[in-house]
Amino acid sequence: MTFKWLKEPAKEISRLHFDNALKHQARLTKPVGSLGRLEEISVRIGAMQATPVPTPDPMHISIFAGNHGVTQLGVSAYPKEVTGQMIKNFSDGGAAINIMAKELDAKIEVICLGVVLPEEYFGLAVHNITKISLPAETQNIANTPAMTTDQLALCLDTGRQNLYHAKNEGVRLFIGGEMGIGNTTAAAAMAMALLKIEGKNLVGPGTGLNPKEVKKKNLIVNSAVKQYLSSRKDETAMEVLRCLGGFEIAALTGSYLSAAQCGIPILVDGFICSVAALAACHINPSISPWLIFGHRSTEPGHQHVLAALDANPILNLDMRLGEGSGAAASALLVRLACNLHNNMATFDSAGVTNKFDP
Amino acid sequence: MTFKWLKEPAKEISRLHFDNALKHQARLTKPVGSLGRLEEISVRIGAMQATPVPTPDPMHISIFAGNHGVTQLGVSAYPKEVTGQMIKNFSDGGAAINIMAKELDAKIEVICLGVVLPEEYFGLAVHNITKISLPAETQNIANTPAMTTDQLALCLDTGRQNLYHAKNEGVRLFIGGEMGIGNTTAAAAMAMALLKIEGKNLVGPGTGLNPKEVKKKNLIVNSAVKQYLSSRKDETAMEVLRCLGGFEIAALTGSYLSAAQCGIPILVDGFICSVAALAACHINPSISPWLIFGHRSTEPGHQHVLAALDANPILNLDMRLGEGSGAAASALLVRLACNLHNNMATFDSAGVTNKFDP
Repeated sequence: MTFKWLKEPAKEISRLHFDNALKHQARLTKPVGSLGRLEEISVRIGAMQATPVPTPDPMHISIFAGNHGVTQLGVSAYPKEVTGQMIKNFSDGGAAINIMAKELDAKIEVICLGVVLPEEYFGLAVHNITKISLPAETQNIANTPAMTTDQLALCLDTGRQNLYHAKNEGVRLFIGGEMGIGNTTAAAAMAMALLKIEGKNLVGPGTGLNPKEVKKKNLIVNSAVKQYLSSRKDETAMEVLRCLGGFEIAALTGSYLSAAQCGIPILVDGFICSVAALAACHINPSISPWLIFGHRSTEPGHQHVLAALDANPILNLDMRLGEGSGAAASALLVRLACNLHNNMATFDSAGVTNKFDP
Repeated sequence: MTFKWLKEPAKEISRLHFDNALKHQARLTKPVGSLGRLEEISVRIGAMQATPVPTPDPMHISIFAGNHGVTQLGVSAYPKEVTGQMIKNFSDGGAAINIMAKELDAKIEVICLGVVLPEEYFGLAVHNITKISLPAETQNIANTPAMTTDQLALCLDTGRQNLYHAKNEGVRLFIGGEMGIGNTTAAAAMAMALLKIEGKNLVGPGTGLNPKEVKKKNLIVNSAVKQYLSSRKDETAMEVLRCLGGFEIAALTGSYLSAAQCGIPILVDGFICSVAALAACHINPSISPWLIFGHRSTEPGHQHVLAALDANPILNLDMRLGEGSGAAASALLVRLACNLHNNMATFDSAGVTNKFDP
């Protein structure tokens, strides 16, 4: 396995289709700009897809799941077993992302990277779940790099292979999600190392810590960054991913890089996914125009990561669930934006007087 | 026709269903509160509908259309003929709200209150369009009350009759929309009179005025409020509606009052609709818990009206189109919120460890 593919440039976005889409928007029966962000979204997707008829369909939701050794220090409101239990829930169709995928008519796939599944789960018929051979969890980042270089390569490549698989099925919009008890700790540590922002601004309650527990989590995040600074081979986003990340975060990073290289628009979820996107942009800045940000999480670190990415998410609904749920909710509006772009009447066709065309 | 019905109290919202819905949310497989506003929306609708299974379906979109005499002073970027032309567009299915209604599988109805339709439109087969006998436009509010007391009563009652009609068809969520060249001028004047806020904070570009034109519009709004203060019979929201409003704004007010009285949740659109809702709350404060605010418009007056109503809209997408379009876009998330509430697995059913239930 090699890291060389990571640096391959993202596909060029079509300036011609961007300009034409803007002109088309000005002909639709509404004051120019009055559909606000919905216009912007359809124009961007038209330019990415190099088509006058942008569409998010079919869309594909990939949930990357992994466990985190740092949970042994008590950084989450839930025990680490919940990661595996939720994978079963994804497979059974009972999680929030399942309900959203049904609403979106989108396919869900779950990729397990280092998760111990519940015992009663073995032997069940499992659809849409891929298992990758990795340890049951990452190392405890408070004092050891999360993973080896080989494991990092495997995770990044898993993201790429997953994206290829989605591409072969014709995906037009890619949504990455994650499940991993402890992963706001890893994401906060990564953001601290990548952005040089104090941990206390990046560490939050995650699934529901109280203020005292958040303080303890902040100390652990600070230890982790100290571990990274002492053990890294060089100061790169790749080393941040390896020393402070998680299997599922690295796979997300790989999937985003690959999507941009393949020319598939990416709808980014909340804090964890945005940190994976941040790492991807550090590794290969050419991918950044392919990122559409779905929602603003209440997890405090998300604001800083969004600011660093100059991102203005579609939704701000006080969500903080993960699973890709914020991106999936916003996908309803992405689809609406494309349908408006493709199906509204023009001033000419409808016989409506246009201010700009007297 | 009488005004007595306006004061009848809104239906009581079920405290029992509210409490039970909150308890149900705490049992679903996600950290409590992690779906943010989506949880709040489903709980509120469950309480309004007094059901453990909230739903927005079937939803109904009523677009009230009217022309404004004040347009003779040049307060809009578009000529007043566009109101009638857009009604034809609504009927032909080419407007933004048509595309949204299709996405939502919602019914659209258009109610014409004082609009001259394009000549070529007569004789066409027209579905879903109701015409109310009123003059071709309101009086010019800069120097004359917009309408007579009888016309006001007719408009309010038209809103009520429309709501009854939707109710008979089983509506579970009501969306009011509007179309009326010149109606941001009327809405700004109404907000100025109701909120005692300076006109310059409430007057904006509407469909696309330049800064100089906005200044002129502000002077006209100030004249209109002066006209109201000198001609009113008493200082009530009813007189604000009569002297400064529009036929379509009064009909919206009537439909909102009636929906709350009938126990039907209301999804409010942007600036014009929020001013109609503000008038409704002044006339009958008991209706306010029935209002769900769909979106925050870029029209500057909307912020002040939302603040006065203590409203926190679902979406903030820089939209400013009207037609009910912001509310319709948000209805996608209302439906998603209800589906999550109704269909997610519980911790018990999915065998997931709950923090709060060790």
